[in-house]
Amino acid sequence: MSKRALRIGMIGYQFMGKAHSHAFRDLDFFFDLPVTPVLQAIAGRNEGAVRQAAEQYGFASYDTDWRRLIERDDIDVIDIVTPNVAHAEMAIAAAQAGKHVICEKPLAMTVEEAVRMREAVEKSGVRALLCHNYRYAPAVQLAKRLIDDGRLGRIYHVRAQYLQDWIMDPNFPLVWRLRKEVTGSGALGDIGAHILDLARFLVGEVRDLAATMETFIKERPLGEMSGGLEARADRSQTGNVDVDDAVAFLTHFESGALGVFEATRFAAGNRNGNRFEINGERGSLRWDLENMNLLHVYLEDDEPGLQGFRTINCTEPVHPFADKYWPAGHIIGYEHTFMNLFATFFKSLVDGSPCKPDFEDGVRNQCILDTVERSAATKQWETVEYR
Amino acid sequence: MSKRALRIGMIGYQFMGKAHSHAFRDLDFFFDLPVTPVLQAIAGRNEGAVRQAAEQYGFASYDTDWRRLIERDDIDVIDIVTPNVAHAEMAIAAAQAGKHVICEKPLAMTVEEAVRMREAVEKSGVRALLCHNYRYAPAVQLAKRLIDDGRLGRIYHVRAQYLQDWIMDPNFPLVWRLRKEVTGSGALGDIGAHILDLARFLVGEVRDLAATMETFIKERPLGEMSGGLEARADRSQTGNVDVDDAVAFLTHFESGALGVFEATRFAAGNRNGNRFEINGERGSLRWDLENMNLLHVYLEDDEPGLQGFRTINCTEPVHPFADKYWPAGHIIGYEHTFMNLFATFFKSLVDGSPCKPDFEDGVRNQCILDTVERSAATKQWETVEYR
Amino acid sequence: MSKRALRIGMIGYQFMGKAHSHAFRDLDFFFDLPVTPVLQAIAGRNEGAVRQAAEQYGFASYDTDWRRLIERDDIDVIDIVTPNVAHAEMAIAAAQAGKHVICEKPLAMTVEEAVRMREAVEKSGVRALLCHNYRYAPAVQLAKRLIDDGRLGRIYHVRAQYLQDWIMDPNFPLVWRLRKEVTGSGALGDIGAHILDLARFLVGEVRDLAATMETFIKERPLGEMSGGLEARADRSQTGNVDVDDAVAFLTHFESGALGVFEATRFAAGNRNGNRFEINGERGSLRWDLENMNLLHVYLEDDEPGLQGFRTINCTEPVHPFADKYWPAGHIIGYEHTFMNLFATFFKSLVDGSPCKPDFEDGVRNQCILDTVERSAATKQWETVEYR
Amino acid sequence: MSKRALRIGMIGYQFMGKAHSHAFRDLDFFFDLPVTPVLQAIAGRNEGAVRQAAEQYGFASYDTDWRRLIERDDIDVIDIVTPNVAHAEMAIAAAQAGKHVICEKPLAMTVEEAVRMREAVEKSGVRALLCHNYRYAPAVQLAKRLIDDGRLGRIYHVRAQYLQDWIMDPNFPLVWRLRKEVTGSGALGDIGAHILDLARFLVGEVRDLAATMETFIKERPLGEMSGGLEARADRSQTGNVDVDDAVAFLTHFESGALGVFEATRFAAGNRNGNRFEINGERGSLRWDLENMNLLHVYLEDDEPGLQGFRTINCTEPVHPFADKYWPAGHIIGYEHTFMNLFATFFKSLVDGSPCKPDFEDGVRNQCILDTVERSAATKQWETVEYR
Repeated sequence: MSKRALRIGMIGYQFMGKAHSHAFRDLDFFFDLPVTPVLQAIAGRNEGAVRQAAEQYGFASYDTDWRRLIERDDIDVIDIVTPNVAHAEMAIAAAQAGKHVICEKPLAMTVEEAVRMREAVEKSGVRALLCHNYRYAPAVQLAKRLIDDGRLGRIYHVRAQYLQDWIMDPNFPLVWRLRKEVTGSGALGDIGAHILDLARFLVGEVRDLAATMETFIKERPLGEMSGGLEARADRSQTGNVDVDDAVAFLTHFESGALGVFEATRFAAGNRNGNRFEINGERGSLRWDLENMNLLHVYLEDDEPGLQGFRTINCTEPVHPFADKYWPAGHIIGYEHTFMNLFATFFKSLVDGSPCKPDFEDGVRNQCILDTVERSAATKQWETVEYR
Repeated sequence: MSKRALRIGMIGYQFMGKAHSHAFRDLDFFFDLPVTPVLQAIAGRNEGAVRQAAEQYGFASYDTDWRRLIERDDIDVIDIVTPNVAHAEMAIAAAQAGKHVICEKPLAMTVEEAVRMREAVEKSGVRALLCHNYRYAPAVQLAKRLIDDGRLGRIYHVRAQYLQDWIMDPNFPLVWRLRKEVTGSGALGDIGAHILDLARFLVGEVRDLAATMETFIKERPLGEMSGGLEARADRSQTGNVDVDDAVAFLTHFESGALGVFEATRFAAGNRNGNRFEINGERGSLRWDLENMNLLHVYLEDDEPGLQGFRTINCTEPVHPFADKYWPAGHIIGYEHTFMNLFATFFKSLVDGSPCKPDFEDGVRNQCILDTVERSAATKQWETVEYR
Repeated sequence: MSKRALRIGMIGYQFMGKAHSHAFRDLDFFFDLPVTPVLQAIAGRNEGAVRQAAEQYGFASYDTDWRRLIERDDIDVIDIVTPNVAHAEMAIAAAQAGKHVICEKPLAMTVEEAVRMREAVEKSGVRALLCHNYRYAPAVQLAKRLIDDGRLGRIYHVRAQYLQDWIMDPNFPLVWRLRKEVTGSGALGDIGAHILDLARFLVGEVRDLAATMETFIKERPLGEMSGGLEARADRSQTGNVDVDDAVAFLTHFESGALGVFEATRFAAGNRNGNRFEINGERGSLRWDLENMNLLHVYLEDDEPGLQGFRTINCTEPVHPFADKYWPAGHIIGYEHTFMNLFATFFKSLVDGSPCKPDFEDGVRNQCILDTVERSAATKQWETVEYR
Repeated sequence: MSKRALRIGMIGYQFMGKAHSHAFRDLDFFFDLPVTPVLQAIAGRNEGAVRQAAEQYGFASYDTDWRRLIERDDIDVIDIVTPNVAHAEMAIAAAQAGKHVICEKPLAMTVEEAVRMREAVEKSGVRALLCHNYRYAPAVQLAKRLIDDGRLGRIYHVRAQYLQDWIMDPNFPLVWRLRKEVTGSGALGDIGAHILDLARFLVGEVRDLAATMETFIKERPLGEMSGGLEARADRSQTGNVDVDDAVAFLTHFESGALGVFEATRFAAGNRNGNRFEINGERGSLRWDLENMNLLHVYLEDDEPGLQGFRTINCTEPVHPFADKYWPAGHIIGYEHTFMNLFATFFKSLVDGSPCKPDFEDGVRNQCILDTVERSAATKQWETVEYR
């Protein structure tokens, strides 16, 4: 094939490393893109682990020093899937080296970091993508289309929840996602950032907010420091949990809509309940990641007596991205959100079309996360100051 | 039959008058109570309307002056189903006259009123019932039983929504439920009070909160002042809406649980979406009034691989109150919440057993409603000061 | 009130006696009918039981001989809620005595009986109602309206199931509903007749069919012979179950539609799963008695990309019968199907309007039930011969 | 990597070609198999189309004559994804050439063909796989495990439906799936075969059955003869539809269970509704392909009052195959059923473990399909004669 190769260097290799690698590999199969992603190199500190990841994911080479990836001439895009603490340094270095950047969310540990990342990207002229992949579920894209077309009219309400339950066991260890110095915040940055991004995508900017944060289990066994979801506990020692187990906040949007957000890892029975409902003057929408192919749509204009939420299986050729995959009713899964995201980004690299979310979105999201923490501390409404 | 008659005088006759009257009439059929409710008299200012209500509901007499009902010797219980503005004066007069009191929610216009009502009841020694009927849905009673039995363990989260959409049309008139002088507050007291009562019933007392209130449509055509849900608009004049269309608030419960509440009349497609989800360390519960016979129960103790929310149709003889009605799977409707409530109250009148919710609950609910309004004004967290 | 009294004599007093009595009592409250049902007398062989029923249900008198009810001048309508074996004799006697007749389903034990019942009614000129109450759920009435309005176009498919599980325990006793001499058939006549009636109501007549019948538990402890659902077992003796536990049949409708029917009492977890789905060239409908307020409607004409089943809560004033009860979203229950049925019948008695289902429907239903048994025996397709 | 390559030659390239190719490519990523599938060659008559398929799917070479693929020494497995008419000739030739065979369902056009295919495989000693991929949905595998563990006890009922709506438009052209000479049968072999396979997998063999088949639209515009789902119509000519649009049949299983099956392409609003419910003496199961990650499980042993269907999201590491993919709650899609199927087959090629469904299953399935057609013709129950 005569397509130009788009050579990718990945830094990190855990859950997100797997999700990204898989999407890169599958892109050519489903999409007719002007470029072909090539898994050029992967970097990680633990040699055994990174070698194994390279083999499983299909990278041509690996390195234990991420800086060497950035220095290589045969890499076009740096993809950062490390814990949050490393995002800024890596992204800035990559941008300065003229690499396009893909970065996992949340963008940074602080607003300050996020702003510097955005500046580095702007200055170097590279393109940058922030991986809020859920925007790219076909049902969410359909939601966006309906809202932009005015089918809901003025938006009154956004209520969004991201409910998980994977750390409810008090003996679950203190993995990196529970340590502030590595992750920045807990449920807030990990899953709260996702529902904020969906709300910004669909309804626009947040003006001010009031928040509260909770840590229900304050001490946990130490786990493997590099550990992911499957970390095993070393019960001989414990450490303090210094991030939030749960966060909730009320918001006013600039448009006048009222937002109610909640993110928690203590909602028993909710494995991955990323949900929103949006109510407008002419209709409403409901979505739930656990049944991510479905969008529930209520239209006020439907004839009297026949009004009700429609359950739309967004797998028809007419639905966003759905024509790339299978016939109607043959559902797609989690991994396709990344494929849709990366396909859009890679196309934009070639034709210069816009691709969101970018680091500007990351800064704005970070400004809101920062305001949430501030409001939880001051115990009053705080206005989001966008940078 | 040799049962003692329990003679009821009702004040008011609209939607709640219909719901209460119906429940009184049906009680003897389904329950084996020691007393028989008798529809003795009904009062209302509009003679035509109250006469028609007396006929439709089956009251033996009617009056245009509620004070005369209270003076009658042949009435045992005064049931107040008027707009909120009148609750305090009527309930206090009834209690002072030695009548038991049933009062629709919210109890009063202010905490001050609510406290005086409670005092009047305490002083006179009569019994008083506050009509938060949703506590008495069998599924909610089962939820209570599970929580009290420790099946959920420590409670982490309560999220409750009461979503309606009946006033979304800007041309819907300024009925009494939209006029502060008559109703006190909007969505807050009308439906927010209901979800607060459910939360207090199931999880306990609220410690502090942060709230916001919204009025999306600020001017409406004047409607018939006496009007209920079916009010017709007089479009020649308009008036200001001085109550909330929507309210949202975050709470900390005294137990440490985190609450997220939202009540709105602007959630298109939600005809009567009174819903809660409660997450505890050992399980979770979900309920929705629109499918009120169902309780969704997740139990952490279920064997691995078979964990998931159970959809329980609470119509089996083993379920609360369900043995009074039909065989399993034959669902009951809205009206049965009142039957269960009144059956419990009437039984308590005879045997002296406790019956909740009472005016003490009303005062506490009102203290929270009051704190919501205060927090919405001060834009900071406010501690509930119970009286 | 000046309304004419409609004096009812009921024969039988178990589950259906309770359901009918309740509906009669509530009618005046919800409907503005030209007549008022009066519970004049109830008959049953067991004096203790019938006296208790009279008291609980509110009948003015009782009798241990049903013939005396029929002889009374002060009774206008005879309502038959006995086991099936007695329907024919009672209905014929009632009709001959000039009483209007209400009869529980299935109409008779045999086609022969059913035809004689129809003839007696025709000859005497009285009106007769067959209690297939589920036709009168508002959601089913809406389904009928949509089909009659051509909203589904040509009907291709009907699939209907009535799934219950109340006799799955092999120790559940041999109650009358399990004894052929008293009930005629098992699941077939008890619940199969219901889904047949719904299908006939909505889609029209059945032309031919192929059927199979099963008895999974062939021997059971003897129970109280008069027993209803709560019958206790006398384990010292057993008897043979000579009726079907389950039945399934394929049908061709006269319109060309294809039907698939299944009725069983051995579907664990299905307390009362009376469900149908109808597929036409322009749309589809789904209904389930356990969530009886909901109708799920798919319309092919919906715009591409927004097609999906709508979940319609049939509680709005615009929905059939719903304006009689509560505001939108306040659901009704099982008992209201009887109220809607009887309200329609009683109105028809006064104004001469048609009211279905009548004994003609009963004969046709019986002809199909009969053909089901025949086909199960011959193991081939059999044409329904309507009488 | 030192894994042995498993070189695949595919014949055909439409919908199933895409699904198989994708699965082959993804296998190494998710599974740690002892072999690596290599897309060696693809064959098809239309050179332009097969070249494009080779490029899109990633095959190293293509050919317009499938016989040349079978003759090649560098191919280990022949994968047949052509219309049904060609299955037998190709599979037999492949087996005789010593290639392992993968074949799309239904196995053949007739029982005779199917038996010859099985014989060719047995004689040559190669392994053969029949692609009833839905067996390999994790939720279906969990269903199997529960049934095999006796959690449902004796099985009473199987009801299975495969409902689609993609040819409802009378102007949809006469694609190969609607032409008997190419496809053998219509809904029966295409989707009816799938639900039969699921039933055989879960509940065992069918003993006898009664069936009916319908063709609602008997004449259609001619389409492109090679066409798949996206075929465009040539309206200038029409042809007769000589396969079934819908089929329904009742079955007795050898175990005594009662089956009710329905497959149709005329169920408006059902894009891909492959559903079953199984009822046993101790519990029930429900599954629906459109929400394929969910299994609904009812267990009679659950404590009284807490009985209800559990909604199990089969994405936890404890669930079959789920540990290969993503964390709990991150759903998988249609394509993973093929991955699980092929992973199991490829592993079995190396270690000699059994892998079902095989051509023996194909013969048995074909015997049932054949009996369905026979019963629809004779209009009586027919016993399945297994070959």
